[in-house]
Amino acid sequence: MKIVLIGAGNLATHLGASLREAQHEIVQVYSRTERSAQQLAHQLSCSYTTDLHTLHTDADVYIYALKDDIIHQVMQQVHIPHALHLHTAGSVSLFQADNGNYGVMYPLQTFSKERPINFQEIPICIEANNCDSLHIIRTLALSISDNVHIISSEQRRQLHLAAIYACNFVNCLYANAEEIMENAQLPFELLCPLIQETAAKVKEIRPSNAQTGPAKRGDTKVMQHHLDLLHSDLQKEIYRLLSKDIHMRHNK
Amino acid sequence: MKIVLIGAGNLATHLGASLREAQHEIVQVYSRTERSAQQLAHQLSCSYTTDLHTLHTDADVYIYALKDDIIHQVMQQVHIPHALHLHTAGSVSLFQADNGNYGVMYPLQTFSKERPINFQEIPICIEANNCDSLHIIRTLALSISDNVHIISSEQRRQLHLAAIYACNFVNCLYANAEEIMENAQLPFELLCPLIQETAAKVKEIRPSNAQTGPAKRGDTKVMQHHLDLLHSDLQKEIYRLLSKDIHMRHNK
Repeated sequence: MKIVLIGAGNLATHLGASLREAQHEIVQVYSRTERSAQQLAHQLSCSYTTDLHTLHTDADVYIYALKDDIIHQVMQQVHIPHALHLHTAGSVSLFQADNGNYGVMYPLQTFSKERPINFQEIPICIEANNCDSLHIIRTLALSISDNVHIISSEQRRQLHLAAIYACNFVNCLYANAEEIMENAQLPFELLCPLIQETAAKVKEIRPSNAQTGPAKRGDTKVMQHHLDLLHSDLQKEIYRLLSKDIHMRHNK
Repeated sequence: MKIVLIGAGNLATHLGASLREAQHEIVQVYSRTERSAQQLAHQLSCSYTTDLHTLHTDADVYIYALKDDIIHQVMQQVHIPHALHLHTAGSVSLFQADNGNYGVMYPLQTFSKERPINFQEIPICIEANNCDSLHIIRTLALSISDNVHIISSEQRRQLHLAAIYACNFVNCLYANAEEIMENAQLPFELLCPLIQETAAKVKEIRPSNAQTGPAKRGDTKVMQHHLDLLHSDLQKEIYRLLSKDIHMRHNK
């Protein structure tokens, strides 16, 4: 398929590379920022623009890999009714307009420009405003991943919320651990095997069955000692609430 | 070395197997619970007891792999002064008695009976009340792991606190995600690639630099929408505080 990529961030970068590898033709990259547009266009050997009015009009698919809060606004500025318009966001509902073909292709993964990603295993959640569009999106998604699921906007919102816990909030806890290690002049690397094993475990044991630690055991002495070691009120409160959550899940 | 294992839980099970594989002789297992003692003794082809007064007295090392809050109490009941007495807990300080040799051998990992563990890569944090004991513990630890570190009680306490974030609290967030997925009738497995990638990332990018998501972007619209989707006050408060923590770390 002939594709125009709207956006040049982490996701657009990985998606562009995967689509190209799957023999699709990326014809153009758009970004508000000239440098980002130029950089990604160079990687994908295509042209670029920073002006939505100069988008190529002959592509089959326009992929809006943009920040959640500007997707609909940008989509509204593009009038190419014969093509299919997809966004990639977990928290944004299907775009609905009078005419045209709209859909969603949400890859459930965290993307960093510096880490290679194998799209083949990434769950891609798709949705469309009609059957023809859904068929095209499904074909497109299956060309880069073996893990494609038709998911409604409502389910996708819940999935995105779950992903916030499993990724953003988890990383926030890693950052808390990093800070504690730094303050104790201990190398963060000491924690890496524990982090990997904790994550690997969920593939075999449900998190609700894998819980360990003082909060589960109700070991208030250790917990109080930990609270004394923490510096900020916010840290103490997070420690308290997560311990409470663990305790409540295991003493229902 | 001739070793008596005091405790028959997850850690004792994995530690016993690794020590035996490293050609040490496990001579006895103690547990309050006869069934646990018997089971582990069977695995390790040794005798067992449920009475501390009938411990073998001719071992070189006694390893107390017990719950944190009973370790010192159990150690106080064992009087075999020529031997070395080690506990394995992150949050418990070095046991100090008038005479005898005491130490700590804290493996920084989460253990489930059902998952095999390769001790070779697990950081083992050691401490002792004298140089001779430290030397013996170091030799013992190096016989099962390449990753041995001499760490003081104070640093170990901080390390244990960091581990609570990186493991217990992270698993608690996985359990929150699991619950959201269940409520939305979505398979938990959809989240696995995201969980694995989030964990794998920290080996290359520090968590403080790897943060993504609405809280970092300050996307209050998405965050408010998520809060509306959450059912309990505890969940809402955890969502709010972790978002605040992310926001504060990135807007210092």
